[in-house]
Amino acid sequence: MNYSDTKIVALCGGIGGSKLALGLNNTLKQKNLSIITNTGDDFLYLGFYICPDIDTVIYTLAGVSNPKTGWGREDETWKTLDVLKELGADTWFKVGDKDLALHLFRSKETRNGELLTTITRKITKKFGLRTNILPMSNHTVQTVLKTEDGEISFQDYFVRKKCKPKVSKVIFKSKNPVATDAVKKALLDKNLNGVIFCPSNPFLSIDPILSIDGIRKLIENHNQPRVAISPIVGQKSIKGPTSKLMNEMGIEVSSVSIAKHYQGLIDGMIIDRSDEKEAEKITKLGIEVKLSKIIVNTKEEKMRLAEESVNFIKEIDS
Amino acid sequence: MNYSDTKIVALCGGIGGSKLALGLNNTLKQKNLSIITNTGDDFLYLGFYICPDIDTVIYTLAGVSNPKTGWGREDETWKTLDVLKELGADTWFKVGDKDLALHLFRSKETRNGELLTTITRKITKKFGLRTNILPMSNHTVQTVLKTEDGEISFQDYFVRKKCKPKVSKVIFKSKNPVATDAVKKALLDKNLNGVIFCPSNPFLSIDPILSIDGIRKLIENHNQPRVAISPIVGQKSIKGPTSKLMNEMGIEVSSVSIAKHYQGLIDGMIIDRSDEKEAEKITKLGIEVKLSKIIVNTKEEKMRLAEESVNFIKEIDS
Repeated sequence: MNYSDTKIVALCGGIGGSKLALGLNNTLKQKNLSIITNTGDDFLYLGFYICPDIDTVIYTLAGVSNPKTGWGREDETWKTLDVLKELGADTWFKVGDKDLALHLFRSKETRNGELLTTITRKITKKFGLRTNILPMSNHTVQTVLKTEDGEISFQDYFVRKKCKPKVSKVIFKSKNPVATDAVKKALLDKNLNGVIFCPSNPFLSIDPILSIDGIRKLIENHNQPRVAISPIVGQKSIKGPTSKLMNEMGIEVSSVSIAKHYQGLIDGMIIDRSDEKEAEKITKLGIEVKLSKIIVNTKEEKMRLAEESVNFIKEIDS
Repeated sequence: MNYSDTKIVALCGGIGGSKLALGLNNTLKQKNLSIITNTGDDFLYLGFYICPDIDTVIYTLAGVSNPKTGWGREDETWKTLDVLKELGADTWFKVGDKDLALHLFRSKETRNGELLTTITRKITKKFGLRTNILPMSNHTVQTVLKTEDGEISFQDYFVRKKCKPKVSKVIFKSKNPVATDAVKKALLDKNLNGVIFCPSNPFLSIDPILSIDGIRKLIENHNQPRVAISPIVGQKSIKGPTSKLMNEMGIEVSSVSIAKHYQGLIDGMIIDRSDEKEAEKITKLGIEVKLSKIIVNTKEEKMRLAEESVNFIKEIDS
């Protein structure tokens, strides 16, 4: 199929979602792809400003990400962190030397009063991309986990505590968050073909985006097809703590639960072929189902899943 | 000679002075050596706090400095700076990956409200030194050069403009600078044997220290011998822009001029053997003269000059 005129907005978190984002980036014209990216995990570390999901998306799309970890850059060195450790600084968050430059650059630009959207555009360009990587917000939205250890921030939970504390609820702290102009423009684009929910953690990566009322409403009321790719295969999440989190919050781990979670926001859902038995329940929610192999590792598989997602949008639209 | 009980305070700038500082550090017991270090060149760069002279002294004494440049660390890499350059950031000041950690650590500690003296002590210890490396101030003192291009800051002059603009005057900008408790304690120590002015640039590296009235007065009124090592051999400075600066400010380039500059603050001066003809003029200023080879390159030469400086103090005292 020819995708040269296809325009897509994707919602994306970090490592999991960026696999599909890469597939989309290689399938569509870059300028026709907008990726609204989670910033709920953003934090200050040693005084510099880190946007883990934006960084992962940029590194992945630019082809400079570390293929082993999924985060950070390939061929990375750790000289600065090693010396910081010698000096007794807190080095729980692993920042490589090349990666550090991005954080320093972003921090500098922030101090100069630039908006995160503008800074991200600058960085994206410098990495040779024409893709519209759009922070979900220019203002702070903090993903906070209510756990047995009290409320903890996302990075504390995810990196420092290795997702160990039991989570009862996920909260998004923000003072009156609004959709950015760039996000609104992307979602209101008359030529947009549809919206894709990447297979990121719905509770930790997509919900922060949807916690911004302006974004949620634009997607709810969208007249173009919206499809999600399930992050669940069987009773397990493809990546990260999704299934552990669902268990702790008393949600059955299944693609049906994800479909229910996104009900009213999506028209279609791609689930794994092995979960064919779930299809009927999802269809009953008013969500069309497409079966596929949703665990994608190679570049070809990522492009295949991206093409299937876009084709699904076009099928629903027709 | 046995130096195990000898206590010395040295005044020091960066590369030039730290050669003698290294000699003193290897000659005396480290805990008996206090080095009051120039902070007039300190600046914020990409949001982190750099103290070039303190860093140079620490790296030199810890044996991790770059022997080729005199600044920065040996076996350094430049990954962060390379990426910052790719991102379009201003990278006129060369910060290596290992070096960067020190600036990040200092910046973090500063944000936590720690005094520069405390931070420097922490860093010094972590580098395995027991030497008292003392910032001349815990507050900002900015060395500013009045030039044909207007007033420019030290780093702009020294690094960015490579000392090219003609200087008419050196100014130290500060709001009521006071001597730190640690500096006062070192200079008021009853067991102190004397004060050594390292062969740093008198106008750019030692004068900022002396611009702090509390320090100047303590040295002026000191009852122990104070000796300076001339940074001039013949009509040339050993290192850096001293002679160019002196010419521009209408000061004859000679050890006699340095002696005049320090008159009232020193009791003795070590000048190069080749400048023997100057000795009489300096003696007439009430300053004792010792001849030596003041260009020191090897560790042995640095220790030899350090020993001569300490011996000179003991001779004057006896």
